[in-house]
Amino acid sequence: MPHVYVEDISKHEGQEVTLKGWVYNRTDKGKLRFLMLRDGSGLIQAVVFQKAVAPDVFTAADTVTQESSVIVTGKVRADQRAPGGYELDVTNLEVLQQADAYPITPKEHGTAFLMENRHLWLRSSRQHAALRVRSEIIKGCRDFFDDRGFVLVDTPIITPAACEGTTTLFELDYFGEKAFLTQSGQLYNEADCMAFGKVYCFGPTFRAEKSKTRRHLMEFWMIEPEVAFADLDDIMRLAEDLISYLVARVLEKRGEELKRLERNTALLENVRPPFPRISYHEAFDILEKEGTETARGADLGAPDETILSSRYDKPLMVHRYPKDVKAFYMQPDPQNPDVALCVDVLAPEGYGEIIGGSQRIHDHDLLLKRIKEHNLPIEAFQWYLDIRKYGTVPHSGFGMGIERVVAWICGLEHVRETIPFPRMLYKIYP
Amino acid sequence: MPHVYVEDISKHEGQEVTLKGWVYNRTDKGKLRFLMLRDGSGLIQAVVFQKAVAPDVFTAADTVTQESSVIVTGKVRADQRAPGGYELDVTNLEVLQQADAYPITPKEHGTAFLMENRHLWLRSSRQHAALRVRSEIIKGCRDFFDDRGFVLVDTPIITPAACEGTTTLFELDYFGEKAFLTQSGQLYNEADCMAFGKVYCFGPTFRAEKSKTRRHLMEFWMIEPEVAFADLDDIMRLAEDLISYLVARVLEKRGEELKRLERNTALLENVRPPFPRISYHEAFDILEKEGTETARGADLGAPDETILSSRYDKPLMVHRYPKDVKAFYMQPDPQNPDVALCVDVLAPEGYGEIIGGSQRIHDHDLLLKRIKEHNLPIEAFQWYLDIRKYGTVPHSGFGMGIERVVAWICGLEHVRETIPFPRMLYKIYP
Repeated sequence: MPHVYVEDISKHEGQEVTLKGWVYNRTDKGKLRFLMLRDGSGLIQAVVFQKAVAPDVFTAADTVTQESSVIVTGKVRADQRAPGGYELDVTNLEVLQQADAYPITPKEHGTAFLMENRHLWLRSSRQHAALRVRSEIIKGCRDFFDDRGFVLVDTPIITPAACEGTTTLFELDYFGEKAFLTQSGQLYNEADCMAFGKVYCFGPTFRAEKSKTRRHLMEFWMIEPEVAFADLDDIMRLAEDLISYLVARVLEKRGEELKRLERNTALLENVRPPFPRISYHEAFDILEKEGTETARGADLGAPDETILSSRYDKPLMVHRYPKDVKAFYMQPDPQNPDVALCVDVLAPEGYGEIIGGSQRIHDHDLLLKRIKEHNLPIEAFQWYLDIRKYGTVPHSGFGMGIERVVAWICGLEHVRETIPFPRMLYKIYP
Repeated sequence: MPHVYVEDISKHEGQEVTLKGWVYNRTDKGKLRFLMLRDGSGLIQAVVFQKAVAPDVFTAADTVTQESSVIVTGKVRADQRAPGGYELDVTNLEVLQQADAYPITPKEHGTAFLMENRHLWLRSSRQHAALRVRSEIIKGCRDFFDDRGFVLVDTPIITPAACEGTTTLFELDYFGEKAFLTQSGQLYNEADCMAFGKVYCFGPTFRAEKSKTRRHLMEFWMIEPEVAFADLDDIMRLAEDLISYLVARVLEKRGEELKRLERNTALLENVRPPFPRISYHEAFDILEKEGTETARGADLGAPDETILSSRYDKPLMVHRYPKDVKAFYMQPDPQNPDVALCVDVLAPEGYGEIIGGSQRIHDHDLLLKRIKEHNLPIEAFQWYLDIRKYGTVPHSGFGMGIERVVAWICGLEHVRETIPFPRMLYKIYP
């Protein structure tokens, strides 16, 4: 009997097949036992009719518990009323293990309890759906850049120097030397794009911030493209294309999962280029009318971002922030050197910043001056300065945080559900 | 004038195009200046003929230095003698930056010097080729699993407990709690495969080993599939298929790079299933005849692996090691409980172990016993034990270290050239 997966069940209509999986739940009705089976690829209802099976098989079906592991053989029958369009008429059922009383029942549980049982919570239908969407988004990111001739270049996780100060870095001892977990692969990417033209890195990044918000994790994944000879406009278009591509791809390939997450997909259908673009100062004209408490010249707060993004049904690109609130490596605008050639992309529906990017300083002396102004250790940045000595060119890039994109596209309340084992403040179990 | 990349040049034969890149080297011959240009996607020769260009353009071509950044316009001409099949007849040349005297010249340099200048060394033709192959292998791994219905599930980097003891772990302070950088995503993967059926993780892993060999890095990338309901034979076939697929893909898509690396591709053409399989004890029969110093019952040393793998022209699968030299979670062989249902895959040509895998213990009580025997903290493994309480099933998986696979397929001497910025003993700059 061939072992098949639920996602391939339509290819086996009318055939007898074997499924291997777990009992998601059980309903009893007279001489029928309905077992909802999950095998990781999907859900299907298996129908056990007392007269169609051996007595011990019916007894097994009658007593099998939630999350017991089973091997089920039966005939695939199309049924328009079934969620996936098919049901299984069971001919045999083997219970591999009768599960202990499963801690996560259909009733409501508190978040702390569910997080303690994250290793089991992953089996629940909503969590399962969100993580399938995550997997699709990651694949989509990689395909997007690979298909455009970008070279994947993995940047290091253990780094000697900090991109933007050391207060929010996890420190570790590297054979007697002080080292940090990376916050961004950008600086390395800049060297890489001078070797490969168009590159991206995609790995875990870390922030030791003592914050407990629904938008923050200590460990999160970030994709960072960097393009030689590209200016701010170029990477704004790239960011817009990437986001639009990802949303379209998830709508096309993970519609079933979005439905299970009860996502309002009409809001996602709007996400097509061009995205609205406003400068920081234009944004402030709006915010001042709305009575923001932030002073013009300061960085935008989360409430400001929500005010701005709620005015649009697409992601909003805010560009040209004051240089003093942004990182040292950003290229000043030749039209107004007080602002940087940078962009933040704010997701709709209050999901906050999902992309931050900029054109980078390509002039050696200006970069050196900035490094000094920021009291950064010049020796540690020598290699970074080198890039400006040997064939420097204008170049730009951005970073996109995967978990916030997943939260937004899935319509999740909190980023903790966007990654299998979230790392949060004081929380690393399991 | 359209900006094109060298890798797309064949589509523009006879057209005038603009290339943006760097001068890889320059040759002067009478009224001709030959500029070898690189733009990250490839190399092309640009020919500057004195009579065909303005005097200042010729002067620029006559004085431009290695690694200067340039924008070159010219007509694409097919030339069978040219390495990529095309040359560019230059009509204009703009030098964006005349580079300082470039530290890496065509003469020989010592490895220490090249590693100090890794950010520039990446631009060299061999390094460039090896990292393009790396990128192809990684994409190949992901496609292989994605196309077979595996779900990518990112496992955490910061972990509370250790898979195999804490002596080779990097430790860090996680808001007052002791934590470690992951050595493997396997334990988490085991929970994931009970939710998703077939999963893989693919991320950086860390080993704080004070070893300085050509096969070791402190930070390396590992892909780890884990499959519910799979036994040792299943994952041996999976490993064999993966490796064969990767080799075939690199031969097909990165032939140019393998040529630049002077790789003997005839040796790679052999890599097709089935791979030879021998048990640990069969391996020892061979090793004893060859006069190994290792005692039967101990783990194989690197010289043993070289003796064994040199007898075959394909990767060799050595299975069923004594359980005492392997990890606590491995399923004992029902035929002989002293050996574990595990496999190591040894690459040909002395490249050592590239895959390690096993069937995992699925019985709760046996696993608990092993955890106690290994003096591991039971509380930290409570969630891991849970997997055996709620619908446990036989399951198996393996881990493949990317850098060793890249070293082998490229035929490189040392793994330090398989990753952009290697992390080695006492070495984290740049």
